[in-house]
Amino acid sequence: MKNIFADRMQATRKSFIREILKVTQQPEVISFAGGLPNPGLFPVEEIMSAASKVLSEEGRSVLQYSTTEGYLPLREFIAQRYLKKSGLNIDPDEILITNGSQQSLDLIGKVFLNKGDRVVMEKPGYLGAIQAFSIFEAEFEAVPLLEDGIDAGSLDRILDGNSAKLFYTVSTFQNPSGITYSAQKRKDVAAILKKHNVICVEDNAYGELRFAGEDLPTIRNYSDYTILMGSFSKIIAPGLRMGWICARKEIMEKLIVAKQAADLHSNYLSQRIIHQYLLDNDLDGHIAKIKDAYGKRRDLMVSMMAEHFPESVRYTKPEGGMFLWVTLPEGVSSLELFELAIEENVAFVPGDPFYTDDNSGSNTLRLNFSNSDNEQIEEGIKRLAVCLERLMGNVRRANAQHGP
Amino acid sequence: MKNIFADRMQATRKSFIREILKVTQQPEVISFAGGLPNPGLFPVEEIMSAASKVLSEEGRSVLQYSTTEGYLPLREFIAQRYLKKSGLNIDPDEILITNGSQQSLDLIGKVFLNKGDRVVMEKPGYLGAIQAFSIFEAEFEAVPLLEDGIDAGSLDRILDGNSAKLFYTVSTFQNPSGITYSAQKRKDVAAILKKHNVICVEDNAYGELRFAGEDLPTIRNYSDYTILMGSFSKIIAPGLRMGWICARKEIMEKLIVAKQAADLHSNYLSQRIIHQYLLDNDLDGHIAKIKDAYGKRRDLMVSMMAEHFPESVRYTKPEGGMFLWVTLPEGVSSLELFELAIEENVAFVPGDPFYTDDNSGSNTLRLNFSNSDNEQIEEGIKRLAVCLERLMGNVRRANAQHGP
Repeated sequence: MKNIFADRMQATRKSFIREILKVTQQPEVISFAGGLPNPGLFPVEEIMSAASKVLSEEGRSVLQYSTTEGYLPLREFIAQRYLKKSGLNIDPDEILITNGSQQSLDLIGKVFLNKGDRVVMEKPGYLGAIQAFSIFEAEFEAVPLLEDGIDAGSLDRILDGNSAKLFYTVSTFQNPSGITYSAQKRKDVAAILKKHNVICVEDNAYGELRFAGEDLPTIRNYSDYTILMGSFSKIIAPGLRMGWICARKEIMEKLIVAKQAADLHSNYLSQRIIHQYLLDNDLDGHIAKIKDAYGKRRDLMVSMMAEHFPESVRYTKPEGGMFLWVTLPEGVSSLELFELAIEENVAFVPGDPFYTDDNSGSNTLRLNFSNSDNEQIEEGIKRLAVCLERLMGNVRRANAQHGP
Repeated sequence: MKNIFADRMQATRKSFIREILKVTQQPEVISFAGGLPNPGLFPVEEIMSAASKVLSEEGRSVLQYSTTEGYLPLREFIAQRYLKKSGLNIDPDEILITNGSQQSLDLIGKVFLNKGDRVVMEKPGYLGAIQAFSIFEAEFEAVPLLEDGIDAGSLDRILDGNSAKLFYTVSTFQNPSGITYSAQKRKDVAAILKKHNVICVEDNAYGELRFAGEDLPTIRNYSDYTILMGSFSKIIAPGLRMGWICARKEIMEKLIVAKQAADLHSNYLSQRIIHQYLLDNDLDGHIAKIKDAYGKRRDLMVSMMAEHFPESVRYTKPEGGMFLWVTLPEGVSSLELFELAIEENVAFVPGDPFYTDDNSGSNTLRLNFSNSDNEQIEEGIKRLAVCLERLMGNVRRANAQHGP
């Protein structure tokens, strides 16, 4: 029965993370694997009030079919916030409400990618984007990340050799690495992409979660040849599946056709609940609480690693977001570490699925710090340290045996 | 900038209905154009209670990310209902929760259709399916509908000549025609498709809304080579965007990969609200109210047409659902009728967009009866009758002038 399926289904790999998450759902496992925001910070009471209000005041309307673009006052709120936070002048008609960032990626892939079209990714890059674009049989070109963002020289050379349709970036608190592009790098990237006529897809799912350093302009500030993606998942709640795409009108026209064919429109009740929540509450005050909590968790995780990990293990110290990135010494496998760690009931995501080429990153891994409490972080990092000692000891012994 | 888009975006036509609906949103227009369920029948109070309950008891959980397949107890409910209503033995793992039927179509298209793959449609056929499959650059073959369902001989001959990947049908209270397949026709279709190894996609969005006649088995009852689609849009509320696909496990595996890449999972709060609603309320009692109301509206619309329309105008008298189908005499254009009707502030959907070939159905149109009250139906049909008299008088005069 295999050949009844479309070719595109061969190109997609089974989600490694999905498999890992199944293992880590057991309550005895301390999991740094998922990408979950901390549910203790969800504004449950406020969402409940908002739901009651829209249902009691406009129940028949909020349960009916609605427009493909999304609820206009919600799009207006997003546009105003872009103006306030980033100085961007966005028309609400340049915003499309989606079922979260993953659908934004699916719609962008659908609208732009023919089989074999090239997409430039960060290396390591966001797994969800790799999955979404793989469905449309894209070819990936991965450009290494430096501490201040993508390697611009490398990006330029690659585009000189062979153009691409899209460049995908999580420019702020990147998933998986936690790194953030410098202002200069954003400017440089915008210029390089413009020169080569490549559209930038700037996924800003974490941008509001900065707990250290200063806010930076988006790449969109330097080039309107940029599609911006945003999400309510990390600043309100992900179960509502609500995000958006911000794009120029000629692109938006195509995205709306694709969105209509994909599911007519996003859940209207949830759009109205989120809008009511935004009307009745102080979003910035709420985000401040999230940033404070996540910042403390990152601090604790970093200090625990400094205390317990071998010195040769390196890691990023992100200024925001939910993840940090660990690099083991060359030759030490994070997959082998994962096997040891699962025996100790602690989990993370090995780096491999974040690479589009098969032979990179086998010594890297991603740790999530948003969804664990202090005790879990302390105990989990200690257990990981024990596993690391054991694994690296084995590697040292093996090297000694095979050495000169 | 045109050539930056994927080829598939050239294949999609702009939605005619979307354009029409914009015109008909003015409050003075009596609209038989949309496909909206009647919002007066939405269980607003009950949805509000369900929302309060799940948010107050499990707020942190219902607002968090969840599984791609959908909430298991909701899938179990659907499986049990299949057993009770249709005698089908369905494993809950053969059910995937989607954002309504339109997403079910998108995922099915994604999983099965390569460019140029053939899809057999009903003629006239459901516009949303034409849109969804067009995105994947399908080739359509349309087989005429008879009073008891698709023309089976014609279906068999067409598949003899040239095979197809999928056959798409709304077998009960079809959109747009309102016709229902007989039990024998369902059996015959299942056998023909099996013979040719063509998968049946049976969209049963309206099947629960029967106000006359007796329930029939699904095509799935005769062949498990059938993908069944269901929806809560017509029996609870469409703004929650909640439907499902029921398919054999080897197909489901691919659908889950596609769903994950498309948007991770369907809105979890809404899944939990619907499940809580189903636990706390009598769904059959609620559906009985909808059927009673829609049946009375259909009766009124049919009797008004019998009284006021010219005798040469034919129409279906559906036993359920939300639509009926009008056929004008040959040579009378429903597009011209639409122009006259809009001047009289009454709207419908001309038949043209329901045909995949360009030269059919110019004398047909769809009327929705679920979303108008008695006064609107009486007044709207009277106005349409006036327009018909005027248009058909013109056609008669023109024919007389050009006649022998």
